[in-house]
Amino acid sequence: MIQGPYLLFIGDAIDQIAVKVANGVAQWRPELCMGQFRLPSCQADLGLADMTMEQAANHGVKTVVVGVANRGGVIQESWLDSLGQALDLDMNIAAGLHQKLSDIKILREKAKAKGKHLYDVRHPTQEFSVAKGSRRVGKRVLTVGSDCAVGKMYTSLAIHQALKQRGISATFRATGQTGIFIEGAGVSVDAVVSDFISGAVEWLTPENKPDHWDVVEGQGALFHPSFAGVSLGLLHGAQPDALVVCHAPGRPHMRGVPDFALPNLADVIAQNEHHGRLVNPNCKVIALSCNTKAMADKEAEQYLTNLAQQFAMPAIDPLRHGATVIADILARL
Amino acid sequence: MIQGPYLLFIGDAIDQIAVKVANGVAQWRPELCMGQFRLPSCQADLGLADMTMEQAANHGVKTVVVGVANRGGVIQESWLDSLGQALDLDMNIAAGLHQKLSDIKILREKAKAKGKHLYDVRHPTQEFSVAKGSRRVGKRVLTVGSDCAVGKMYTSLAIHQALKQRGISATFRATGQTGIFIEGAGVSVDAVVSDFISGAVEWLTPENKPDHWDVVEGQGALFHPSFAGVSLGLLHGAQPDALVVCHAPGRPHMRGVPDFALPNLADVIAQNEHHGRLVNPNCKVIALSCNTKAMADKEAEQYLTNLAQQFAMPAIDPLRHGATVIADILARL
Repeated sequence: MIQGPYLLFIGDAIDQIAVKVANGVAQWRPELCMGQFRLPSCQADLGLADMTMEQAANHGVKTVVVGVANRGGVIQESWLDSLGQALDLDMNIAAGLHQKLSDIKILREKAKAKGKHLYDVRHPTQEFSVAKGSRRVGKRVLTVGSDCAVGKMYTSLAIHQALKQRGISATFRATGQTGIFIEGAGVSVDAVVSDFISGAVEWLTPENKPDHWDVVEGQGALFHPSFAGVSLGLLHGAQPDALVVCHAPGRPHMRGVPDFALPNLADVIAQNEHHGRLVNPNCKVIALSCNTKAMADKEAEQYLTNLAQQFAMPAIDPLRHGATVIADILARL
Repeated sequence: MIQGPYLLFIGDAIDQIAVKVANGVAQWRPELCMGQFRLPSCQADLGLADMTMEQAANHGVKTVVVGVANRGGVIQESWLDSLGQALDLDMNIAAGLHQKLSDIKILREKAKAKGKHLYDVRHPTQEFSVAKGSRRVGKRVLTVGSDCAVGKMYTSLAIHQALKQRGISATFRATGQTGIFIEGAGVSVDAVVSDFISGAVEWLTPENKPDHWDVVEGQGALFHPSFAGVSLGLLHGAQPDALVVCHAPGRPHMRGVPDFALPNLADVIAQNEHHGRLVNPNCKVIALSCNTKAMADKEAEQYLTNLAQQFAMPAIDPLRHGATVIADILARL
């Protein structure tokens, strides 16, 4: 568990897109985010109070979360003074970059001397087992996608929120860095050694009370030539009772691979159900969740109505509608 | 590249099954294996000349290959004197165990002092990229399975051998430890970080001459709840023109997971072709390769004849027949 509350460190971010991770945390856990830390050249703003490291420590911040991305995923020289100061002031640091905090000597040594944690959430230190596939009690819903970056985390969090509002026992199970910062726990599944993908997800979503829902954040897409292995391992490990297919209409091609057209949604539904049923014969797609940001209101409603009709299941945009419709279906399962 | 020739180290193996890796290397690369090294309590025999480390060094051995498995995949205390001696005598060491040779201080320091290599083939040190999925020139055949441990490596090596005998340019691409020792190179794909499975296989099977065949060793099975993610990532990375389905008839359940029945072969064929066509629209299962060891000759022939008829493609046992039939089909593709 990453200790809250957080100070969101966005350093010298070059634009608002570079602070996507921090934005997600600020949006979903406002109560956890005391403020933001920016260097003079920062070109982004999370709309939180700017704080120095001293102010953050005085406000009771326990962990400084590095919520800024850059080319190469490195910890920049220009951040080291501030991050070192955070440790001096008895705060932990969490990051989800390619480069590890703990690989930087000055941070590693300071953290050790002060007894503070460096959370490198993209580098699981846990040893996982090979998946067993045995049926386990408790219910699980997994978000899957027609592509990468189509709103699987957002949809999962919206479903989790709607379940809680309905008074249903539920846990959000994070599988990527932003989700892990939001929940304070999770496993970055794409960083797990291949042999243990499904095993790691079994560990993340253990047996539970029969009416408890784990809402599992999906990753990648079964039809994406770079990441399908991760998605299939995640699907098998999650042993889901329900799937929600996430989709961003209008893309010219699969993300990052211009040679690959988007699959049609009927195939996405059929293939995810087919593979999900290996581990859970009841596995079923129960709803579609679309990112209709690029559409006008009327166009979006028409689009979603058509989809719902075509696939005989609810089709929503969680940004427009929340996910109560999905929580209602899960409550009946 | 692991430098040959080899001395096969089987230490204090408790039985013949524990030396499966060494057996595979001795069988497929007899010209590379100068001898075996056994401790007094060894219960296995590879049928090779027993050698001391001094004798091995005098015979020109370049690398001592640890070809024995044990519970936990650890390097045993009782091996350290002999392995240390190997380094002292200017030989390298290669192992494919869970525990790394280079994590053992005495071996690491000796290797460094002598300028020798410790090859931990299950722990890729290489940095791989995310898969691109772009079509590349050169032909590739991949072995896939109805289950784990059904003869994918054996079949791949038999196909490679048959292609060479036909004078066709071909390379065996190893994806597991035994295969890597046999070929002297390869990537242990189940040890690669999930994000890079397909990328690692793209790296392993690069663009080549249009009439060159890469024979890619498969891993796991699309219908195995523990390892399907690895198999799908490997399928996408290999971008195969041809698939050979490997099968071991008569198993009571999927290996290691008693709750899971074997899939039927029609599904194995259909699903592997379906997913393979994402990256190569010509991807096609061209033959079945069965392990009929448990059957009498006549029963095996009848079984294979029936399969061939049912699926309208050759069905062979490479142990009984070699793989010339498969090489013939590949030559025509």
